[in-house]
Amino acid sequence: MMPHHVNNLGHVFGGVILAMVDRAAAVTAARHSRRPCVTVSIDRVDFREPIYAGELVTCQALVTFVGHTSMEIGVRVLAENLLTGKERHTNTCFLTFVAVDEQSRPVPVRSLKLETDEEQQRFRDGRRRREVRQALARELGDDQ
Amino acid sequence: MMPHHVNNLGHVFGGVILAMVDRAAAVTAARHSRRPCVTVSIDRVDFREPIYAGELVTCQALVTFVGHTSMEIGVRVLAENLLTGKERHTNTCFLTFVAVDEQSRPVPVRSLKLETDEEQQRFRDGRRRREVRQALARELGDDQ
Amino acid sequence: MMPHHVNNLGHVFGGVILAMVDRAAAVTAARHSRRPCVTVSIDRVDFREPIYAGELVTCQALVTFVGHTSMEIGVRVLAENLLTGKERHTNTCFLTFVAVDEQSRPVPVRSLKLETDEEQQRFRDGRRRREVRQALARELGDDQ
Amino acid sequence: MMPHHVNNLGHVFGGVILAMVDRAAAVTAARHSRRPCVTVSIDRVDFREPIYAGELVTCQALVTFVGHTSMEIGVRVLAENLLTGKERHTNTCFLTFVAVDEQSRPVPVRSLKLETDEEQQRFRDGRRRREVRQALARELGDDQ
Amino acid sequence: MMPHHVNNLGHVFGGVILAMVDRAAAVTAARHSRRPCVTVSIDRVDFREPIYAGELVTCQALVTFVGHTSMEIGVRVLAENLLTGKERHTNTCFLTFVAVDEQSRPVPVRSLKLETDEEQQRFRDGRRRREVRQALARELGDDQ
Amino acid sequence: MMPHHVNNLGHVFGGVILAMVDRAAAVTAARHSRRPCVTVSIDRVDFREPIYAGELVTCQALVTFVGHTSMEIGVRVLAENLLTGKERHTNTCFLTFVAVDEQSRPVPVRSLKLETDEEQQRFRDGRRRREVRQALARELGDDQ
Repeated sequence: MMPHHVNNLGHVFGGVILAMVDRAAAVTAARHSRRPCVTVSIDRVDFREPIYAGELVTCQALVTFVGHTSMEIGVRVLAENLLTGKERHTNTCFLTFVAVDEQSRPVPVRSLKLETDEEQQRFRDGRRRREVRQALARELGDDQ
Repeated sequence: MMPHHVNNLGHVFGGVILAMVDRAAAVTAARHSRRPCVTVSIDRVDFREPIYAGELVTCQALVTFVGHTSMEIGVRVLAENLLTGKERHTNTCFLTFVAVDEQSRPVPVRSLKLETDEEQQRFRDGRRRREVRQALARELGDDQ
Repeated sequence: MMPHHVNNLGHVFGGVILAMVDRAAAVTAARHSRRPCVTVSIDRVDFREPIYAGELVTCQALVTFVGHTSMEIGVRVLAENLLTGKERHTNTCFLTFVAVDEQSRPVPVRSLKLETDEEQQRFRDGRRRREVRQALARELGDDQ
Repeated sequence: MMPHHVNNLGHVFGGVILAMVDRAAAVTAARHSRRPCVTVSIDRVDFREPIYAGELVTCQALVTFVGHTSMEIGVRVLAENLLTGKERHTNTCFLTFVAVDEQSRPVPVRSLKLETDEEQQRFRDGRRRREVRQALARELGDDQ
Repeated sequence: MMPHHVNNLGHVFGGVILAMVDRAAAVTAARHSRRPCVTVSIDRVDFREPIYAGELVTCQALVTFVGHTSMEIGVRVLAENLLTGKERHTNTCFLTFVAVDEQSRPVPVRSLKLETDEEQQRFRDGRRRREVRQALARELGDDQ
Repeated sequence: MMPHHVNNLGHVFGGVILAMVDRAAAVTAARHSRRPCVTVSIDRVDFREPIYAGELVTCQALVTFVGHTSMEIGVRVLAENLLTGKERHTNTCFLTFVAVDEQSRPVPVRSLKLETDEEQQRFRDGRRRREVRQALARELGDDQ
């Protein structure tokens, strides 16, 4: 993170982190589907603690849940102080992408192999998040 | 939106829009509180339709809900085709900010005057979103 | 205005402001003509007072004068201190654009409705500026 | 000039050229005065012909006129097609700078040695432009 | 790699890759020394094959050789076609950094643990490269 | 050099200089060959002394050696303190380019006229550097 990524308090802008997260997730979705992918949604992101200029920010992204044409990507954001080696987990984001063909129409993606307990738990959490998203959308209506 | 904001399908990256939305919301929060403000969270964002290079993107931001030290900012994203004048409402985002002092500690912000029915409805929706956020956080736990 | 827009005195570079002004004016010309527009000239710009990092800069642009294929766009530049709410009018610029077709040839633009006294005064000032521009060009010659 | 400097017609934005011109002139003013310099004004700029992506743009800047604390800098903009070697003089700009001290107060600058006929002619043109600027400002008033 | 990183042939500029490589190597040197590090030199870089817009470029950096205050960092550059999954090793760079204190004076760095045969071979290659560098510098002199 | 080009010690990143050097050299190669040119390699670069934010960095590039389809470009990097006028020669780089046709195949380039003793010495040094490069590549093998 460089001086032009921060506000006058020395905190990195939330939007800078969101743009990094979107890029990391888009690469992960493209690697799973080997297709161009477009961002469908990003779930609520909590900026639990500030990130400072001079820290190294790393995004660890993986596919957590796969529907028919959509993929949920989870992204962990880590901030490392290069002088002390101390690393903090600052936030986690979930984004949904769809794989598309040349006319930008959704195409099916391969399913996700769930081998470990952790992968299965992530998958169940991803499905649960999708249900909550849909319930919230119905309740507040579409006309935001 | 310029050529360097788009992917190979000609769609503007979601992260570019999110960074614009964060900046518009941060200005709106700072104008309400006359304090430096930091992004606490951004609610789920649906990218309902793609935005293309060459379109003019405008963010309309306003304060929808105010707690003790936090403010919810709603941002409507509009994409205008400059040659036809046709404007689309592509998505709406809700962000939460807190106003802080020089030591980055939260400080109270003035309340929101609710004069029209529309303002009162927006406020109720904002409060409801906060409740859903808190319920979801409790259910999935903090260890994401 | 961010740290990378300023010189070592903390003043925003004139060129950064000019680039913003050009973009705001180009959008305004495109909205009037619903055509691609190219910058023909920018009138003298006085940087009457410095703009500082951390201020919010807003450009208010409107069509002031319309010839056969050209439009004069006036742009007011405002700098707002977000912590105090104080807003300064730092300068005003006048730019001339022409609307063009796909082969970059000038095309006629619709005339300007002049309804208020203010609009008529602006139009007369715009015509006067065009005369002064032409007189100055004749006097100093074309071979600059 | 790179793809992200151009509009959809392939023309480089006027604002991109103005930002380059301002930087070249600021360096020239700083070299004359060996002081930090701030842009006071930029004279009318005519974009006589478009500049295209892929062309090499060069700014040739020199001090044309010196007052007590101000300097007029003339900048010639050249566009070279790298494949043919053909170079075009696309426009010329005149900018006024003042040299300042640490408190941003104007400080006197050394005068300009006028040795050749060309330098003397440039100096007279610069003085004449200053008179026209002042006359135009008086006529239209300050309240733009 | 995005459209604004490429020339008119669609190849990513060498300088863009070099800037990425320098950043990856600087992070690696800082992690080894837990000190600010400055680039002392970059060895010859061969751009054996072009990299195209749309490819994902990854830099794998590791410490290959450590002197008293200097570190040699080797960086492998990989380009992945996201649609096919095919990854190419496009080039390898060796950079030398020194760790410095607050006055920018070199400070000793911890030595490198050499456990595997591969690590020992890398170390010997690094020492050999340093000898060749010094011999070449002596032969051509310092007055380049 | 601007604030966003420097690390926390106030030194300009090596990668920023390398990107400037590559652009200056690419223009010089294109002017010699009047063809699109691609970077084949960059020789070892020594960053003999740091460059600071606020200094003016100039790259002086010239063709030093020409093979059948390749050109060696030498680039001298100068850093000028604008307030004192003091200029330092911070480093020198040698890059190799090939001129290519539309299918990116190498094409012959015109030879270099060697008129002065200095030009002939530069040419001999360039040829010697090519031999050392080839010898080093043979010795360490291609599998880096």
